[in-house]
Amino acid sequence: MSTPIQYDPIGVIRTPFDDPERMPIQPAGESAATGTVDLNDEYEAGLADLEGFSHCILLYHLHAGDGGYSLTPTSFLDETPQGLFATPTPSRPNPLGLAVVAIESVEASELTVSGIDIVDWTPVLDIKPFVGAFDIPDDPVDGWVEGAQADVETAAADDRFVESSSE
Amino acid sequence: MSTPIQYDPIGVIRTPFDDPERMPIQPAGESAATGTVDLNDEYEAGLADLEGFSHCILLYHLHAGDGGYSLTPTSFLDETPQGLFATPTPSRPNPLGLAVVAIESVEASELTVSGIDIVDWTPVLDIKPFVGAFDIPDDPVDGWVEGAQADVETAAADDRFVESSSE
Repeated sequence: MSTPIQYDPIGVIRTPFDDPERMPIQPAGESAATGTVDLNDEYEAGLADLEGFSHCILLYHLHAGDGGYSLTPTSFLDETPQGLFATPTPSRPNPLGLAVVAIESVEASELTVSGIDIVDWTPVLDIKPFVGAFDIPDDPVDGWVEGAQADVETAAADDRFVESSSE
Repeated sequence: MSTPIQYDPIGVIRTPFDDPERMPIQPAGESAATGTVDLNDEYEAGLADLEGFSHCILLYHLHAGDGGYSLTPTSFLDETPQGLFATPTPSRPNPLGLAVVAIESVEASELTVSGIDIVDWTPVLDIKPFVGAFDIPDDPVDGWVEGAQADVETAAADDRFVESSSE
């Protein structure tokens, strides 16, 4: 049950954010930032039909961290420590990132998206269509984030990559 | 940019579905099936505060496939081939699975969830809180799935693991 799993990136995500500490942290679709997912040429045919969707899910490797993490990090939205799996901190046992972004266009092996808050040169592992019926639950309750949400729109990621200390 | 990435499972997902071909395929939260995410004991502290959320996102390794995939698979919802990245097929270059599930309870290192359509003994890689503001876009458009959606509630996964032929 603990055999290591190996993935090969299928491409790279290019964005305007070359400094992890200056990235905007914003609700889905509210960022104006545009980026491109440059897939390796061999995967071009797999992008067919994606333009029919308004949004997709990017799964990527959070490569900017140092591999350390805390099981009770203090989030950038709040001053109270939270359980790691109740936070979106990028410092995790497996640094997998997930983002819902808007699809702008597809040209050859290049997917242009907006509403992105990902560091430049991030390795991408998978792209999935965002399907409302599968991905939106009824009446979600957002836990501790609800109280902290007023700060989301102006927050920058200052501490997100700094708080790591492997426990 | 193509350095392989290695992840170690943080636990295993136990569900009633031991046969990948008989799994229900259902919209988020509509399945009554309950399962447990059994985390390795070392991660127990990371589950704190997760019960404040109604839903979480499970990221897992789709271990039941044979590693093959088609870039233009024919989905279980439709008879028309679609670009791989516009489908949720489990046969992918990196077989990463994603599910939004309802949180029922947390006890020690065991997270009980419902609305699950995952194969028993699936290795879990990460758990994230589902946060509406981050994870729900405005007015999503579901592409080719919208026309096929009438079939979702009764569909079983028959072909999802069979259609693989590495291209």
